Amino acid sequence: MNIHYLDNSATTQVCKEAADAAYRMMRENYGNPSSLHKIGIQAEKAVEEARGIIADSLSVQPKTICFTSGGTEANNTVLFGAAQALKRRGDRVIVSAIEHSSVYESAKRLSELGYDVQFAPVTEQGIVDIDVFKALLTDKTILVSIMTVNNETGAVQPIERIAKLVHKNCPEALFHTDAVQAYGKMPIRPKKLGADLMSVSAHKIHGAKGCGALYIRDGARILPLLYGGEQQKKLRPGTESAPLIAAFGAAAAAAVFPDLSHHTDQIKELNRYALDQLQAIDGISVNSPIDALPYIINISVAGIRSETMLHHLEEKGVYVSSSSACAKGKRSYVLEAMGLPDDRIDSSLRISFSRYNTTEDIDALIEGLKSGIATLQKKQKPSP
Amino acid sequence: MNIHYLDNSATTQVCKEAADAAYRMMRENYGNPSSLHKIGIQAEKAVEEARGIIADSLSVQPKTICFTSGGTEANNTVLFGAAQALKRRGDRVIVSAIEHSSVYESAKRLSELGYDVQFAPVTEQGIVDIDVFKALLTDKTILVSIMTVNNETGAVQPIERIAKLVHKNCPEALFHTDAVQAYGKMPIRPKKLGADLMSVSAHKIHGAKGCGALYIRDGARILPLLYGGEQQKKLRPGTESAPLIAAFGAAAAAAVFPDLSHHTDQIKELNRYALDQLQAIDGISVNSPIDALPYIINISVAGIRSETMLHHLEEKGVYVSSSSACAKGKRSYVLEAMGLPDDRIDSSLRISFSRYNTTEDIDALIEGLKSGIATLQKKQKPSP
Repeated sequence: MNIHYLDNSATTQVCKEAADAAYRMMRENYGNPSSLHKIGIQAEKAVEEARGIIADSLSVQPKTICFTSGGTEANNTVLFGAAQALKRRGDRVIVSAIEHSSVYESAKRLSELGYDVQFAPVTEQGIVDIDVFKALLTDKTILVSIMTVNNETGAVQPIERIAKLVHKNCPEALFHTDAVQAYGKMPIRPKKLGADLMSVSAHKIHGAKGCGALYIRDGARILPLLYGGEQQKKLRPGTESAPLIAAFGAAAAAAVFPDLSHHTDQIKELNRYALDQLQAIDGISVNSPIDALPYIINISVAGIRSETMLHHLEEKGVYVSSSSACAKGKRSYVLEAMGLPDDRIDSSLRISFSRYNTTEDIDALIEGLKSGIATLQKKQKPSP
Repeated sequence: MNIHYLDNSATTQVCKEAADAAYRMMRENYGNPSSLHKIGIQAEKAVEEARGIIADSLSVQPKTICFTSGGTEANNTVLFGAAQALKRRGDRVIVSAIEHSSVYESAKRLSELGYDVQFAPVTEQGIVDIDVFKALLTDKTILVSIMTVNNETGAVQPIERIAKLVHKNCPEALFHTDAVQAYGKMPIRPKKLGADLMSVSAHKIHGAKGCGALYIRDGARILPLLYGGEQQKKLRPGTESAPLIAAFGAAAAAAVFPDLSHHTDQIKELNRYALDQLQAIDGISVNSPIDALPYIINISVAGIRSETMLHHLEEKGVYVSSSSACAKGKRSYVLEAMGLPDDRIDSSLRISFSRYNTTEDIDALIEGLKSGIATLQKKQKPSP
C-alpha cells in the first residue's frame, strides 16, 4: 500500500541530502569539534558551515545562532534563561494561550517559581487578540513569547505588530518567537520581525529529530539552561551533535535555498486543491483560519472522534494527526482557546504537508475521509 | 598517511552498526514516536528497543532509563533536578574536585543559587580522599555526585564505598555517578554500585554525538530540566531523537554484548604495551594511577608544552588530546586538584583507546613522542 504521509508538522522524513550529511559526519568526519587537532577542526568546520547556512536562511550573523537539541530545548532556554537574566527588572512574562507545550509548560513552571505569567487569549480564528495583549504589557514585563505559526491550525500570528508593541511599551523586555512551524515555510527574518530571540527545529523541515537552533540577537543577554564546557560561548555546553547539525544545514539548504517560494507555491496549490474538496464534503468544517500557513489544515469531521478517523485513514495508508504529537491523545488546548465547541475539538484532525506531497496524497485523504464518514458515523455511538 | 586516533575519550568514530541504524531511522522509520498512527508507533518501537538494550547493559528496568541529548544534559538534569526536588530537606551538594565540567560548573551554579556546595578533594593519585569526603557528609546533604572514571586520567573512583557512606550517613540524599567514561568499558551496575542516578553517553562508545541517557532509580524523584510535551514521562520532553537513540542502542549492543570482557582484555593488553614503552622513555612521567581504567593514559613530557607535542604528533598522523576536549586549551583543573606541579600539567597529554585501536597505533605514538622529544625540547624556550 502506498504511504500518504500528511503529518509533516509532527515530523518529517529526513531528506537524502541531510541523512547523507549525518552519515558522513558519523563515519568520516567524526572528530570532537572542540578538539585542538585536525580531526577536531574538520568537525568544527562542518558545524560552522551549518551555522552559516542557518544564519543565512534567517539573514543574521552566524554568531547569533546557537544549536540546541531541538525546539523544546530552544524554547526552554529562552523561557528560563531570559526570565532569570532579567528578573531584577521585572517579573511579568507573557505567552499566548496557544503556544507549543514547550513554551506553555515552561511558562506554567515560571509561574510556580513566582513569576507573574500571563497567557494572552486568541480570537476564534486562533490569532492573538491584539487589544487584550496590549493591555497585558506593563513596565514589569521582561519577556514575551508568541509563536510565529501555530502548530495545530497553521494560524500565522501578527509577529511584526506584536514585536513593535513590546519594544514600544516594554523597552526592557525581550521578545521571542517560536518559529518551529514557520521556518523554511515562509520568509522569516528576526530583524525584520523585531524578534530578539527565535527558535527553529530541524525535524520539521526534513532534518533529523534531536537538533534545533536558537537565534539570539547580538546584545540580548540570557542565562544558559545547561552548564559545563565552553562550547557555543558557554551558552550551550556539551559536545555539539556534529552529525545532526550538518544534517540540519543540508536540510535547511534544501528547504530554503535557492528559492523558498518555489516550495511554498507548490504547497499553496496543494492546499487549495485539498481545501476545495474538503469544503465540499458534508460534515467537515475547517478550523484553520482562511489566511493560515498553507502547510497545515485543521478540520473537524462531525460525529467522528479524531482517533477513530485517524485509524480509519491509517488503514488506507493516509497518515494525519489528532492534534499535536507532543500531547499524545490529549484534548487540544489550542482549539479550546479558540472557543470551539467540544464536539468540534474531539473530532479534529490536522493535515500537514511537505514539499514531497502530491495531489495523489490529497486524493487518498479525500477518499479516506469520505469512506470514513460513510461507515463510521453510523457505527459510532454518541459520546456520553 | 595512516590515522592513529588515540583521542577516544574526547569522542569516537561512530561504528557502522550505529551509523546504519541512524540512517535507517532517518530515511525509513522516520515517524514521531509520539504519533498515534503506525508510522509513529514503529519509531516508538525502535526507541523502546534501544531503551531495552541500554537498560540491559546496566542490569536495570527500561522504565528507569531516560534519554537525553548527551552526558552534559544528563548531568545537568541531575544537579538541578535533584537540588530543586530536595531543597526542602537540605542544601548541601557534594561533588568531587575532578568532575567533568558539566557537573563541576553546574555545582558552581548551584552555589550561586544559594546551595551549600562542597568540592571533595582527591589524593595525588586522583582518587577521592575518603576521609575528607566522609567528613563532608551532613544531615543537610541532599545530593552527592562523584564520577565513576575520571575523563582525563582514567582514575577509577571507589563508587561502591562512596555510595554506602552516602546512604548510611545521609539517608535523604541521592547519589549520582557520571559514568560517561566508564560505560561500555568496565562492568557498571547502578544497583550493585548503590547509585540512585547514573549518566552515560553514546559518543564515547562509538555512538553518535547528541545522545545520552540517565538512569533514575525507581522511586528517586528529581524535577525535569526541560518542560513541554509528555515524552519520557514528562521528565524529558521534546521529540525523541529516534535516529540517535537507535544508534546508541546499536553502539551499546556492539560494545557491551555479548561480552564486555572481550574488549576490555584487548584494551588491557594495548595499555600494557603502551605503558611499557612510555615508561622507558626518558622525560615521560605517567599521571594516571596504576589501577586506572586501561582506556586512558595521561602522561607528561618534560619540557614540552602539551599543544606543541599534540601538533607534532598530529603531523605523524597520531591524535591525542591536551586535556578534556570540553576545556579547549585551558589548564587542567583535574591535574591541579591532584597537586601536580605546573610544568607537569602544562606538558600533559591524554592518550585514550577504543576497541578499534591496535599496537600499530601505539608504535606510531611512541615513535612520534620520541622524535618530538628529540627535536622539540631544544627548540622550545622555557615558559616565562
